[in-house]
Amino acid sequence: MENIYQTRIARLREMMARSRWDAVIIGGSDPHSSEYPADRWKQVRWLSGFTGEAGDLVITADHAGLWTDTRYFIQALAQLDGTGVELHKTRVPEQVLIPEWLATQAFPGRNTVHIAVDGLCQQVSGIEGLRAAFGEDTEVRIVSVPDLLDDLWEDRPAIPATAVYEVPEEVVGESRERKLARLRGFLAAQACDAALLSALDEIAWLLNVRASDIAYNPMAISYLLVDREGARWFVRKNARQEVPDLPDVDVLPYDELPVCLAEGPGRLFVDPDTLNYHIYNLLDPDSLICGTSPVGLWKAVKNPVEIEGMREAHLEDGLAMEQFLWWLEQALEAGEPVTEWDAACKLGALRAAIPGYRGDSFETISAYGPGAALPHYITPRENAPLLQPRGLYLCDSGGQYLFGTTDITRTVPLGPCTQQEMEDYTLVLKGHIGLAMAVFPAGTAGCQLDALARGPLWRTKRSFGHGTGHGVGFFLGVHEGPQDIRQNFNRQPLLPGMICSDEPGIYREGLHGVRHENLILCRDAGENEFGRWREFETLTLCHFDTSAVLKELLSADEVRWLNAYNERVFRTLAPRLPAEVALWLRDKTEAI
Amino acid sequence: MENIYQTRIARLREMMARSRWDAVIIGGSDPHSSEYPADRWKQVRWLSGFTGEAGDLVITADHAGLWTDTRYFIQALAQLDGTGVELHKTRVPEQVLIPEWLATQAFPGRNTVHIAVDGLCQQVSGIEGLRAAFGEDTEVRIVSVPDLLDDLWEDRPAIPATAVYEVPEEVVGESRERKLARLRGFLAAQACDAALLSALDEIAWLLNVRASDIAYNPMAISYLLVDREGARWFVRKNARQEVPDLPDVDVLPYDELPVCLAEGPGRLFVDPDTLNYHIYNLLDPDSLICGTSPVGLWKAVKNPVEIEGMREAHLEDGLAMEQFLWWLEQALEAGEPVTEWDAACKLGALRAAIPGYRGDSFETISAYGPGAALPHYITPRENAPLLQPRGLYLCDSGGQYLFGTTDITRTVPLGPCTQQEMEDYTLVLKGHIGLAMAVFPAGTAGCQLDALARGPLWRTKRSFGHGTGHGVGFFLGVHEGPQDIRQNFNRQPLLPGMICSDEPGIYREGLHGVRHENLILCRDAGENEFGRWREFETLTLCHFDTSAVLKELLSADEVRWLNAYNERVFRTLAPRLPAEVALWLRDKTEAI
Repeated sequence: MENIYQTRIARLREMMARSRWDAVIIGGSDPHSSEYPADRWKQVRWLSGFTGEAGDLVITADHAGLWTDTRYFIQALAQLDGTGVELHKTRVPEQVLIPEWLATQAFPGRNTVHIAVDGLCQQVSGIEGLRAAFGEDTEVRIVSVPDLLDDLWEDRPAIPATAVYEVPEEVVGESRERKLARLRGFLAAQACDAALLSALDEIAWLLNVRASDIAYNPMAISYLLVDREGARWFVRKNARQEVPDLPDVDVLPYDELPVCLAEGPGRLFVDPDTLNYHIYNLLDPDSLICGTSPVGLWKAVKNPVEIEGMREAHLEDGLAMEQFLWWLEQALEAGEPVTEWDAACKLGALRAAIPGYRGDSFETISAYGPGAALPHYITPRENAPLLQPRGLYLCDSGGQYLFGTTDITRTVPLGPCTQQEMEDYTLVLKGHIGLAMAVFPAGTAGCQLDALARGPLWRTKRSFGHGTGHGVGFFLGVHEGPQDIRQNFNRQPLLPGMICSDEPGIYREGLHGVRHENLILCRDAGENEFGRWREFETLTLCHFDTSAVLKELLSADEVRWLNAYNERVFRTLAPRLPAEVALWLRDKTEAI
Repeated sequence: MENIYQTRIARLREMMARSRWDAVIIGGSDPHSSEYPADRWKQVRWLSGFTGEAGDLVITADHAGLWTDTRYFIQALAQLDGTGVELHKTRVPEQVLIPEWLATQAFPGRNTVHIAVDGLCQQVSGIEGLRAAFGEDTEVRIVSVPDLLDDLWEDRPAIPATAVYEVPEEVVGESRERKLARLRGFLAAQACDAALLSALDEIAWLLNVRASDIAYNPMAISYLLVDREGARWFVRKNARQEVPDLPDVDVLPYDELPVCLAEGPGRLFVDPDTLNYHIYNLLDPDSLICGTSPVGLWKAVKNPVEIEGMREAHLEDGLAMEQFLWWLEQALEAGEPVTEWDAACKLGALRAAIPGYRGDSFETISAYGPGAALPHYITPRENAPLLQPRGLYLCDSGGQYLFGTTDITRTVPLGPCTQQEMEDYTLVLKGHIGLAMAVFPAGTAGCQLDALARGPLWRTKRSFGHGTGHGVGFFLGVHEGPQDIRQNFNRQPLLPGMICSDEPGIYREGLHGVRHENLILCRDAGENEFGRWREFETLTLCHFDTSAVLKELLSADEVRWLNAYNERVFRTLAPRLPAEVALWLRDKTEAI
């Protein structure tokens, strides 16, 4: 029997044959280059069954391939089974990315290649990379078809349009007027008349608005056109949706952007890394200024009010986490059956009770034993594995609050652990502490610190395939740039006010996974004869279980850090916890 | 009274006025982009008095500036005093490099700027950077004048021409024929007819020849033109010089390169990072292929014969070092007066007695106390400071042997040390060990490991302004690329067979300097479920003095490494040392 994905791909190939397209690229993003698209744009999932958060498909007459990174290899192999779609690995040394694959493996030596893309879901810079991969001897014809899959995907979801609300200046620390003035200052410096923003988190930050168009991401699907005098916000409206009256902003229907662009906005600044190719093609190339949007960096450097909010969010989140961990231990000790799904629900309920809670910041990973070996495991709703009173349980979760965003992973020893589990647990903690304790010169980029977290794992020939740290937004995306802490060559220095995760891990297929994650705030650490210094403040407040720690693998400094952190968690949270939980936490945070 | 450098600069300005040049750039290199030029090309020194190994001058009608990096700030300020030349700092966050300075500070908004350069001493890529810095509205006219200073510099030294000799295949592990065949394979892959090499170490490596044209660098000043069939070597000859008969290579006079190039070598491969602008201008732009020369990477990956030679060189060098350190301690204990210069001479004499010794690999830094705070201190021949039986003495030195090159720094406690001296001594050792012990995934670049050496210093807000490690040649330059270990974004992975230094430091102006340097060889460390691994083998064999070590600042792992290293040094060297030195070394290497 033919698999449903085989059928869909076959129908796409019929369309390709009729249109004389050699290849179709289906990107995993939406018209706004979002990391997490709404259901309407889960085109990769619809066509291949792959549900990972990062993946692009290429279909040719005789090949269907999914390109995804190390995080999703195991998941992709399982989900692609029977679809005829082959996995192409990225973020590995031998990777062959889509442009190079098309040029050298699919169509080498061809005079002309027709490549169709859904222009709405393809960023401009991606198209440039595609053309560059082919030599001068090949004519690459890019066919941009907005909503290319519409004719095949009958029950395709609509573009979401949820209620939009303002976040007050007292909470976000800077008025919309000031933020717009900053952008206009940038336009003046660039000698531009206007800027077109399409990244949803940049728009939400700039306008001090939020919505719920995308799960876990409190943003509204929209474009924003800012010129020297005004701002026009193109946002979906429907019967149920409310859009607040914003004094300095004209609110217009989402679909009217092309009309306004046709009027000619003058010299227009756009960011080819977030603008989609369909809109780009509507613009006059001669009046375009392409560059990196400055809003991303402004947004990444949190102001004192945002920092205070993030501290508050982590206090509330920590209280929920400790109650969750206490409940979990009680339930298992009482012999109650607890599945991964039950645990996720319990934690979700504790977070939901926090005033200001607006949802989780991503889908909770609640994974026992071998499930935790998949860094982005999806906890099944039905027939979820039962937690056992032994080995390691990994829970990666976070909340969106009106006053901040959290992201925390705890790996919890549920009872006796193997020597390897304890070694992995301790070494990952050693790496986590190595980064958390770091002091470093002003101007240092995350990639220059990454070895502090990886070094202790490497020394014992262990490693992990994901980044050590990602930027985190303020009641916005739980992943944001431009900074990160990973093995790339990202030159963005870590600046005071930036928030990153610190989350090394070790994953052993079929056995267990360990990850320890806190959020850390970069802050100034003074100046001396050697220059200006930066350090991290750990924002997350939830103890690390010491029962699986092999103390002999930690240095004296690392043990001191661990004891001081657990003590700080206890002193901060205990007064606000139920007495029985506080007493339990006293035991859990005893110095080792 | 006018300083001699002021006079020289004034005469250059007269020439500039006559020629209507707005600026003259005098680079610190030679026609071959050598790091260490022969005296003929020490133009920066002649014009400004600055003797550092890296520095470029810019002269305009009203400004004279020297651009140099952190290593030379203190030295430059002292040497430029009274010359009217201002120091421009590089490798600091606020740096303004020459192209940007010319464009934005010297000549902003100008329609036309005439910049004169000594085309012979200016690499092509530097000129490209210069043009790029000015906007489209400025016409930059580059005037390339070979030997621009010739008319002013009356007793300018000639181009050196020393005897050239072959190094046998048994010593370097690969024949000239095979190396030339490798280059021809590269030419075929690039669809080129010929390659023009101008980097002296690449030529020496490729031809298996050495000479002594430049102090400490066993190379011959020459160009090499390799085509599909033959090779033409353009090298200086004079009455005293011998050039061996190389079966596959036509030896031609150095000055005949332009004539041969005029004949048209076909599609020609050149490296704009090493080719000079004068020669570049003689070439037909339409038949040039610019790229990174592959020879640099081939040369950096040592073959098994070279590695064995390097191990042998470090054994011999270690014997000399231990005898030197023993002599130093005896002399000071006996109350003999020993100056920095005396110590350098003693060490030089011990090295010179080693069979195969062909000179030092750079000028020995022999620096007591505050002198050592200058990372590139020059030990004065006259009135050198006396070593005192207290505090720290730093000695950075190395040898060139027919079978390898060494580079070692030891910081020696000569008696009681202050708490700060001991802390600095121990923390630098901690950083050194952090890198030496590293295990890391295949594909990792040096900049991704740098934090392993710097982290322990940063933690206590100490740092150093130079790289942690540079590549080292095989009986070639003591500095070579393409790999390094520093805070840049150099993507070159460390490959098995590459040799680097591991030399963190701390420098306190007016007090002391600490640097601990060994050479380390990158080698394979096997494969497991997490991938393929690399590690370092320490080549250098000379104990670290433990009397200034504060053991409590080291982790158990680090103490183990230190004790094992000292024990290995003792076991390897003692059987070949005089009995009294071996006995002394037994004490010095006792475990802590």
